[in-house]
Amino acid sequence: MFKAILTYDGTRYFGWQKTKNGPAIQGELEKAIALVTGESTMPEAASRTDRGVHAKAQVVQFALKNQVQPHRLQRALNALLPSDIRVLEMVLEEFHPTLDAKCKEYHYNLDIGPVQDPIRRLYSWHFYYPIDLVKMKIATLDLIGTHDFTAFSNIEEKNPICTVESIIFDGHFVVKGNRFLYKMVRNIVGTLVYIGCGKLPPGCIPEILQSKDRKKAGVTAPAHGLYLHEVFY
Amino acid sequence: MFKAILTYDGTRYFGWQKTKNGPAIQGELEKAIALVTGESTMPEAASRTDRGVHAKAQVVQFALKNQVQPHRLQRALNALLPSDIRVLEMVLEEFHPTLDAKCKEYHYNLDIGPVQDPIRRLYSWHFYYPIDLVKMKIATLDLIGTHDFTAFSNIEEKNPICTVESIIFDGHFVVKGNRFLYKMVRNIVGTLVYIGCGKLPPGCIPEILQSKDRKKAGVTAPAHGLYLHEVFY
Repeated sequence: MFKAILTYDGTRYFGWQKTKNGPAIQGELEKAIALVTGESTMPEAASRTDRGVHAKAQVVQFALKNQVQPHRLQRALNALLPSDIRVLEMVLEEFHPTLDAKCKEYHYNLDIGPVQDPIRRLYSWHFYYPIDLVKMKIATLDLIGTHDFTAFSNIEEKNPICTVESIIFDGHFVVKGNRFLYKMVRNIVGTLVYIGCGKLPPGCIPEILQSKDRKKAGVTAPAHGLYLHEVFY
Repeated sequence: MFKAILTYDGTRYFGWQKTKNGPAIQGELEKAIALVTGESTMPEAASRTDRGVHAKAQVVQFALKNQVQPHRLQRALNALLPSDIRVLEMVLEEFHPTLDAKCKEYHYNLDIGPVQDPIRRLYSWHFYYPIDLVKMKIATLDLIGTHDFTAFSNIEEKNPICTVESIIFDGHFVVKGNRFLYKMVRNIVGTLVYIGCGKLPPGCIPEILQSKDRKKAGVTAPAHGLYLHEVFY
């Protein structure tokens, strides 16, 4: 089985998964693999990133009937893929992209201030109002650990229990956890930003978690600030 | 007179100066000022950045007949300008954007390695081949000081004497000088990269300067890695 590490600028994509609505990373990769090998595949990813979300190192798996040297396939794919998708690494490895993943790390970029930075406009969430970074830093502590994160998911989940291992915040977010619910990272970011700007009180997180009510948490932060940074196996 | 600090993503622009070929920063600013004030102006910039070059802090000057509060004008312009151009500051000040400028600082971003980073593809020069950063660092020293930079200009210059105050290089470039010839920063970057990858010998800079021959220096580095970072008055 092939294991590929993919990096992409998600701006113009409808997310990882193929859809009828528009271009998707999965579809672009399938097309490129088919052009190189003549085989049709169904690449699976560690994280089904949403529309507009970027990836520094998405982990992808697919199988081929014919033998191809991984580094040759990598080079051929990089020559055919659009410039906003690249294969960083390619090896042969037996693994399951989702079931074997122990931990994922997401990054979220903020651009705080009255005037948006045009150069970062496609890669960070511009937040106009002043926010209290210290309040936010303290509030992150209430999210660490194993909780029912129903209040931070945009859909009903079969298993809402997740372990958030760490959240580092220094103006940008680094969130690590064993698994994440639908839009959970963006809901965590939105809730922390709401705490930072005073729309939610500093100590609200335990109550929000307990309520299991999505409406109690903050806004879903926009997709274009989010990066799948790493998947740990 | 109004002094505005502009920041822009130069990707889709034909440079600062208005042209018949396509959109320019100057033209977008003129249009926005006309919409807000009803007045036609001719904004002048500290640096006429080329097609595709970005700016962190371009300094722009223009005059209006009617009185407008600078911070109100700034806000109105930011509401009307395309999202890849923003006014960072706006004050009333008597000055000349080019003649009074004592020093300019440019940054140049490299992306070194076999696979281009898609997220930085519009904002850095991807250089495929391995390069020796130490060789490049040492070679920068030969460019510091007051020299005839004819060999680093893409056009014939009336006054080719420039003082390069400093070049910091740690994978990216920070170049400071009193004035720069046409495409001089990009020619400096291209020459240093050629030294780094062995296409030019390490000690070649003094000879290139003396030759006054553009053909002796390296390639002109692409525009999209270059940022006008600051103008000092």
